[in-house]
Amino acid sequence: MMAPYSRIFAVARPPRTEVGCGHQLSVPRKTIEMTDLPDSPDPRSTREIVSYHAHVYYDPATTRPEAERLRTWIGERFAVTLGRWHDVKVGPHDQAMYQVAFAAELFSSLVPWLMLNHGSLSVLVHPNTTNPRRDHLVNPLWIGSPVAVHGDKLPDHAAGEQAPSPNTHPVLPP
Amino acid sequence: MMAPYSRIFAVARPPRTEVGCGHQLSVPRKTIEMTDLPDSPDPRSTREIVSYHAHVYYDPATTRPEAERLRTWIGERFAVTLGRWHDVKVGPHDQAMYQVAFAAELFSSLVPWLMLNHGSLSVLVHPNTTNPRRDHLVNPLWIGSPVAVHGDKLPDHAAGEQAPSPNTHPVLPP
Repeated sequence: MMAPYSRIFAVARPPRTEVGCGHQLSVPRKTIEMTDLPDSPDPRSTREIVSYHAHVYYDPATTRPEAERLRTWIGERFAVTLGRWHDVKVGPHDQAMYQVAFAAELFSSLVPWLMLNHGSLSVLVHPNTTNPRRDHLVNPLWIGSPVAVHGDKLPDHAAGEQAPSPNTHPVLPP
Repeated sequence: MMAPYSRIFAVARPPRTEVGCGHQLSVPRKTIEMTDLPDSPDPRSTREIVSYHAHVYYDPATTRPEAERLRTWIGERFAVTLGRWHDVKVGPHDQAMYQVAFAAELFSSLVPWLMLNHGSLSVLVHPNTTNPRRDHLVNPLWIGSPVAVHGDKLPDHAAGEQAPSPNTHPVLPP
């Protein structure tokens, strides 16, 4: 059985001595024991992942042109669903961003490409399972500097979100 | 032509208002102009990526059992090369860790699996191209909290590192 989310995030997370990022918890060293393993006997299967979102963060005052160019590049190369521009904070996001929704099959081409081409932008890539809060806080990957994510604005339970029909028409190879 | 590395990292990186992580630079807002796009007309191709390394960080005093369990799980499921345990800092790494070297073909199965199963551990996944410093500082992805990476201990040029022969004998599906 999976360890409850609260346990994974609040108890099993180790003390951090480096400068942490906004969405991370710090816990005093005394609460951590060497034997304090999360009580999950088996790892989770990636079959839980229904689709992915990438969130491309930018600063409207400085890096919007870079975000525009990245968006154009993505649309030319990948069959994804490009979301609206959000020049102000929305939902759990602490910075302006747009979303890129994509099917699990695109992970192996799109994510490495974003690693090489994110430039100065931060990109959050999270799986979509039945637990959006955990997807965003515990199980994402970050390309570029992590940005705070407000988990209190995300539910613990939801239907796993299928990738919508792509709204791009890629004409170039990645 | 690609923008020079120093330009990408030192000039084009935007100001960060959130708490940054150790390996990131902060630059004063006044040095950023809306027109300050990196001067690369074309994105990089993922064909530059010869292989990948994952570095699994742990605290010898608290999270080694968790790192051991993750290592066992990886070895049971993925044809990778598990590196030695480094209970003390080594090379550019600012925390104890072990390396997992893997072929590009494993990215789509191993990386999502690590997202779901890293627990409290931080994992750095970086491509291996001909520029190890850039691979580690600019083009990695992070699962869990980023840890400082000391770029001064990495070269700007190297032969792209092929994935070595796996030393695991996986018997379970991811």
